[in-house]
Amino acid sequence: MVERRILVVHGPNLNLLGTREPEIYGSLTLQQINARLEERARELGLELECFQSNHEGELIDCIHRAQGRCKWLIINAGALTHYSYALRDAISSVGLKAIEVHLTNVFAREPFRHVSVIAPVCVGQIAGFGLNSYLLALEAVARAL
Amino acid sequence: MVERRILVVHGPNLNLLGTREPEIYGSLTLQQINARLEERARELGLELECFQSNHEGELIDCIHRAQGRCKWLIINAGALTHYSYALRDAISSVGLKAIEVHLTNVFAREPFRHVSVIAPVCVGQIAGFGLNSYLLALEAVARAL
Amino acid sequence: MVERRILVVHGPNLNLLGTREPEIYGSLTLQQINARLEERARELGLELECFQSNHEGELIDCIHRAQGRCKWLIINAGALTHYSYALRDAISSVGLKAIEVHLTNVFAREPFRHVSVIAPVCVGQIAGFGLNSYLLALEAVARAL
Amino acid sequence: MVERRILVVHGPNLNLLGTREPEIYGSLTLQQINARLEERARELGLELECFQSNHEGELIDCIHRAQGRCKWLIINAGALTHYSYALRDAISSVGLKAIEVHLTNVFAREPFRHVSVIAPVCVGQIAGFGLNSYLLALEAVARAL
Amino acid sequence: MVERRILVVHGPNLNLLGTREPEIYGSLTLQQINARLEERARELGLELECFQSNHEGELIDCIHRAQGRCKWLIINAGALTHYSYALRDAISSVGLKAIEVHLTNVFAREPFRHVSVIAPVCVGQIAGFGLNSYLLALEAVARAL
Amino acid sequence: MVERRILVVHGPNLNLLGTREPEIYGSLTLQQINARLEERARELGLELECFQSNHEGELIDCIHRAQGRCKWLIINAGALTHYSYALRDAISSVGLKAIEVHLTNVFAREPFRHVSVIAPVCVGQIAGFGLNSYLLALEAVARAL
Amino acid sequence: MVERRILVVHGPNLNLLGTREPEIYGSLTLQQINARLEERARELGLELECFQSNHEGELIDCIHRAQGRCKWLIINAGALTHYSYALRDAISSVGLKAIEVHLTNVFAREPFRHVSVIAPVCVGQIAGFGLNSYLLALEAVARAL
Amino acid sequence: MVERRILVVHGPNLNLLGTREPEIYGSLTLQQINARLEERARELGLELECFQSNHEGELIDCIHRAQGRCKWLIINAGALTHYSYALRDAISSVGLKAIEVHLTNVFAREPFRHVSVIAPVCVGQIAGFGLNSYLLALEAVARAL
Amino acid sequence: MVERRILVVHGPNLNLLGTREPEIYGSLTLQQINARLEERARELGLELECFQSNHEGELIDCIHRAQGRCKWLIINAGALTHYSYALRDAISSVGLKAIEVHLTNVFAREPFRHVSVIAPVCVGQIAGFGLNSYLLALEAVARAL
Amino acid sequence: MVERRILVVHGPNLNLLGTREPEIYGSLTLQQINARLEERARELGLELECFQSNHEGELIDCIHRAQGRCKWLIINAGALTHYSYALRDAISSVGLKAIEVHLTNVFAREPFRHVSVIAPVCVGQIAGFGLNSYLLALEAVARAL
Amino acid sequence: MVERRILVVHGPNLNLLGTREPEIYGSLTLQQINARLEERARELGLELECFQSNHEGELIDCIHRAQGRCKWLIINAGALTHYSYALRDAISSVGLKAIEVHLTNVFAREPFRHVSVIAPVCVGQIAGFGLNSYLLALEAVARAL
Amino acid sequence: MVERRILVVHGPNLNLLGTREPEIYGSLTLQQINARLEERARELGLELECFQSNHEGELIDCIHRAQGRCKWLIINAGALTHYSYALRDAISSVGLKAIEVHLTNVFAREPFRHVSVIAPVCVGQIAGFGLNSYLLALEAVARAL
Repeated sequence: MVERRILVVHGPNLNLLGTREPEIYGSLTLQQINARLEERARELGLELECFQSNHEGELIDCIHRAQGRCKWLIINAGALTHYSYALRDAISSVGLKAIEVHLTNVFAREPFRHVSVIAPVCVGQIAGFGLNSYLLALEAVARAL
Repeated sequence: MVERRILVVHGPNLNLLGTREPEIYGSLTLQQINARLEERARELGLELECFQSNHEGELIDCIHRAQGRCKWLIINAGALTHYSYALRDAISSVGLKAIEVHLTNVFAREPFRHVSVIAPVCVGQIAGFGLNSYLLALEAVARAL
Repeated sequence: MVERRILVVHGPNLNLLGTREPEIYGSLTLQQINARLEERARELGLELECFQSNHEGELIDCIHRAQGRCKWLIINAGALTHYSYALRDAISSVGLKAIEVHLTNVFAREPFRHVSVIAPVCVGQIAGFGLNSYLLALEAVARAL
Repeated sequence: MVERRILVVHGPNLNLLGTREPEIYGSLTLQQINARLEERARELGLELECFQSNHEGELIDCIHRAQGRCKWLIINAGALTHYSYALRDAISSVGLKAIEVHLTNVFAREPFRHVSVIAPVCVGQIAGFGLNSYLLALEAVARAL
Repeated sequence: MVERRILVVHGPNLNLLGTREPEIYGSLTLQQINARLEERARELGLELECFQSNHEGELIDCIHRAQGRCKWLIINAGALTHYSYALRDAISSVGLKAIEVHLTNVFAREPFRHVSVIAPVCVGQIAGFGLNSYLLALEAVARAL
Repeated sequence: MVERRILVVHGPNLNLLGTREPEIYGSLTLQQINARLEERARELGLELECFQSNHEGELIDCIHRAQGRCKWLIINAGALTHYSYALRDAISSVGLKAIEVHLTNVFAREPFRHVSVIAPVCVGQIAGFGLNSYLLALEAVARAL
Repeated sequence: MVERRILVVHGPNLNLLGTREPEIYGSLTLQQINARLEERARELGLELECFQSNHEGELIDCIHRAQGRCKWLIINAGALTHYSYALRDAISSVGLKAIEVHLTNVFAREPFRHVSVIAPVCVGQIAGFGLNSYLLALEAVARAL
Repeated sequence: MVERRILVVHGPNLNLLGTREPEIYGSLTLQQINARLEERARELGLELECFQSNHEGELIDCIHRAQGRCKWLIINAGALTHYSYALRDAISSVGLKAIEVHLTNVFAREPFRHVSVIAPVCVGQIAGFGLNSYLLALEAVARAL
Repeated sequence: MVERRILVVHGPNLNLLGTREPEIYGSLTLQQINARLEERARELGLELECFQSNHEGELIDCIHRAQGRCKWLIINAGALTHYSYALRDAISSVGLKAIEVHLTNVFAREPFRHVSVIAPVCVGQIAGFGLNSYLLALEAVARAL
Repeated sequence: MVERRILVVHGPNLNLLGTREPEIYGSLTLQQINARLEERARELGLELECFQSNHEGELIDCIHRAQGRCKWLIINAGALTHYSYALRDAISSVGLKAIEVHLTNVFAREPFRHVSVIAPVCVGQIAGFGLNSYLLALEAVARAL
Repeated sequence: MVERRILVVHGPNLNLLGTREPEIYGSLTLQQINARLEERARELGLELECFQSNHEGELIDCIHRAQGRCKWLIINAGALTHYSYALRDAISSVGLKAIEVHLTNVFAREPFRHVSVIAPVCVGQIAGFGLNSYLLALEAVARAL
Repeated sequence: MVERRILVVHGPNLNLLGTREPEIYGSLTLQQINARLEERARELGLELECFQSNHEGELIDCIHRAQGRCKWLIINAGALTHYSYALRDAISSVGLKAIEVHLTNVFAREPFRHVSVIAPVCVGQIAGFGLNSYLLALEAVARAL
């Protein structure tokens, strides 16, 4: 059912999770994170589609394809968060309600990470809780239904 | 137990919730929000202390008093978010782990609301989900324990 | 009657009027100014409540209390004019129509005095006429009725 | 008598008042506004000269001609407010005491309207009260005499 | 007929066309450009009024006079493009639909030419095609009818 | 013939035309727009190649492939307009004469849309006329031949 | 005697001294610091009044009360240093000669700590010497007498 | 002879010289200054045309008319110096070699006077010598011949 | 051997080398450059992998794939240098030691080329020596071993 | 006589005049320029001391030594113009009346040359006339006497 | 003994003390100041070396020479404070603990004096107390020992 | 032979190499570095002159003296890199081809180190390789011959 279906999008370099600077990003791999999200989604009666790409264009294509099939978008756009106005337009162009998530507290890191060009077209943001940032986003969807 | 005890702080003008621009902030009163938080905290095995003030100084005093009694802080600093470096120093001065919450998606509003001077000393941020921003913060604490 | 009732709010340091840099702010005390305002209000068929505080929080509390009892706010926020977004939110949160007044021409003074964070949520501004700034604000209310 | 004589200057596009975006600027024509000002001036024992032009140069010429004949200037410089340093120099070059008026609350509109290059050479500002902005300026003159 | 009637306005220094820096602006005189526009307008069933002035005030007066007589405005405001908020207000004050044209690609020239204060109140912009910028604007009007 | 051959490039999210925020971008699909452009090109004796992608890299590849086959480029780079210096370099690297088009008046929208990083390497810009922005660009090519 | 009487003001969070980030601020409590100041003052023939508050308003009230009773102000305004224009106006409104002190070298810390809005209305600054910053301020007063 | 003929242009408010803030601008009237310039020009074998206007448009018209009749321009553009890009374009559009003069040292006055938008299209600047600024410009022309 | 293995990455538009603005970038093709690099690497006992793409995503994928196989990265990111924070994160995410190279002296070109978002995560930069920038980077690796 | 004695100071790199970029700075050597200045000074009844150094400190020392011996300073500070606040303080510390000269029109060159940190402490500026900039400065002194 | 030995460095123009703008800097000569410092140092059991130069390079050389001979540096860098990153690097390169002093309250003067590029590498700052700024710095050293 | 002769210039504080913050700058002394450069130069058939000074003026004098004797300049200007426009002018005034080198990756350090005012007048930059930065610059010269 579209109402309960969520697209989860992971942006550039998130495929390296678990190996990439684990002191910053934690030791779970993306596969493990996706498995945890699937599991929690089932508990909450939600359906998930997970997608990762290092290509801005593929992320946009993927968001386009979700139109009419999903109602929600949980997105960690990685570094594209800070400059991809094309991703922003993709989000506002389709009917998905978007939640922006970040593993880390981006406001405690380099200044360029303090600006999100996609935030204004999202419903809300959750940042700083590692894997839990995603899980809380699932809760947020469940609560909104 | 200190580990499971959370101070919930509401900043200036949040006492008006329910009557203040309900199309922006929703129709629940602060009392109703606090009641919902208490209820959910109990379910999660957490203890709450809720406090609201329109006075920066009282918010700081309150955060100081929580030292040693609470381990977590859930804070919606209202407009003080954008300029109260004194509040920021209060948070970093005590041993509380802070979660910044906002009812609205501050990044879709006036530019002055895009800057949080307290974000760098918090663990994470949750914004844009109305009452659920607070409830998700409770979940975040529960998941972290 | 609510329609004709005005809250007059004086911000930080205005209690020193008459003694504080009289070459800038004039030699009338705040008590004398309030007396003159009361007198003029009576002539115009208006009712006044005057309040001064050096505490941002008390100014916000006072504005909250006026909700439902006053329709108008005449406010000289003193130096809070330039940074108190909390005061701004207090004004926009309640149903008062606000007039911002300044004793001096703030645009001919230090650059930090050129920015008012409360101006966008007020009806209008009157600045530069000393005591008369307040009296003209009373006239403005009377004319609007 | 010079002491009680006021030059009222209306800048570019104010000749369109009544037809120009009446939801912003009101439905009174400039002729009607001038008539109201004349009437009120007479009541206050003041003499008026009203002038409107869309030409920066004519506004400057007019201000120059008032030297020695008027003591006061009430000026709504329209959009020239925001960039005409030549107008500013005209005001500071002659002996007129100037009051800057605006029909609307310029601080609640586009950012370019938040800066007045003439404000520093005026006595004071009155903005946001429609026609009453001018009438209050007349009162301000009367009170100063 | 008002619907098909277009005011063409040329701003400061455009009277020098043909002699002014021909390597930048081309060798056609303003008279030749106007003749070409008239000719093309006739082909498209449009009526033109052409006006040039080096005076901001006359340009504003001219735009005011077109109110009710023309429906469209094709304007090359010359250097006033970059600072004349008064011209901007003139355009938004009257009911004309405006098309901003430039002979050259202003974005490949000095930085001050990259900002147009009139663009936000126009329907669209055409820049960089010399005389053809104007002719394309005529086409744009014809296509919109 | 290379002289009369034009590459038409549509950037990210333009594949959604007709469904994406039709109140902003109109109800024609990209296929319909391309068909209209083909038809008009034939009338003007021009040949077209149309290409759309959400991938910056594919847009660059496509521009590279046109080298030697087309003389002109009509490009609506979508949101890449505002940050893709790689696209800018692609345009200046090949021998195509580029015309930048936008469906909407970008200067009346969000500030980030006011800056085009590709404008300085184009011949000209046409913005604000919906489908007609493209058609006018075709006219511009035809007139330049 | 007024001439030799000094108000010592400690701003927000300084009540936590000794426990708050001792690696930054040292291990002396505020009580210990005040005792050391009293002792040194006696040696120098100076009289002290010490005051701490986390409330901007109380700090202002306190400075007002000192008028006529003290001639000097030694102030560590804590984080209010960086934004409290109200505190600045309080200092310049009364006749106290103010010395700004900081425990740490604020210029070697976060950028927001590099700006002091009270510095321009003080006599001088002493920063970076821990408790000795205060003691040196006492010496400065003694030397000035 | 064109080679030795100089247009001297005085911008807004310079007609008030002698009466306008004489402590800043000196006590000579514009007529007296022009007479002194004529006299000195004759000594140097130069011919002068002097022009003053408070109208940007008239200044531009005047510069246009000098084309082919004068080779040099000595210009004190008054406050237009700081924003009139139209005047700048007028100077660069005609074949006059321009010398920018100011009576006062503009760099020791308000910040807005530190920027000259006409400087980049002039040959040189002379500022700060009162009447002598003009006389030195005459010398500069004589020396260049 | 990983220690002596280098990934050489060429970003957008570098495939056009030899034909693209040869007066700026030289007349060697990318194939010729790669051949020269291979040759020199052999002399130095280094192994190379060369890769070019106009796709940010492919560049990131390629850098990811080198993890564990190469120890060094020589990268000319083309225009992505100036905005691709995703590329930056790719570099810092994997264990490669990166050397940033540019054919031209980017600091003598357009301002946008003066900023490198990848520089902070590289070991060093070599710019301005054409093909030799790459060869010097090889020497740098050889010297570091 | 002190009144008629002028120190002429040439800053860094001006010793290279005649050989340094003669297309910008002319072909006269500094010796030739000084000789011409001496000659002209004699004609005007003025006495000169000329000094050149590439050392900021020597320029400052030299200005200090002139105190009491010269009344005027003609200074071309070269690139120190743009950042040497120490030179600025030297000028304002001694009783010399300073005239800033430049060979070229600095406002038509790189942006960093548009700012002079010494201008605010000079009497006036003369720029853009090559050798004549100095000669006009001599005239300026002669006229002021 | 190195521990108790202090290098006192006076930067550009401080050799003029006593004669330079005495209303700002006081009437004591540098010799008198040094004598007072020597005297006070003896009382405190400290040894001094005093040095003044108008040459940035000599100041750096002097700081280098103190390495191993002095442990402390008291430095009034004069105007070099505001731009000499070379001086800053000299201070951080040697093992001296530096105290920055200023005679005046630099924050109440021109904006360029509000920035100290050496402050981040000093232990602390003392400003605004005239000669006493230096004496307090001696006390600071004595207290730290 | 001039063609193969290189001036190597080391700016302020580089005389301290080996002792100055060795964890940042390495443990080689400047003498050792120069010896290594001499040795490598001989191998490459190049001749060197090495010079170090902490005085901006001496560095400029030295560059001037190299004119006609050397063709190349390898320069590590130390902190002067970031503000010495005089050094920049020295480089562009003489016929030397300059290579800017830095021991460290300046872009990974304090923001003020990210700007080089000399970069635009150099041929290229090499930064981040310690001693090897200089050696690579020698290679760059050898390859260019």
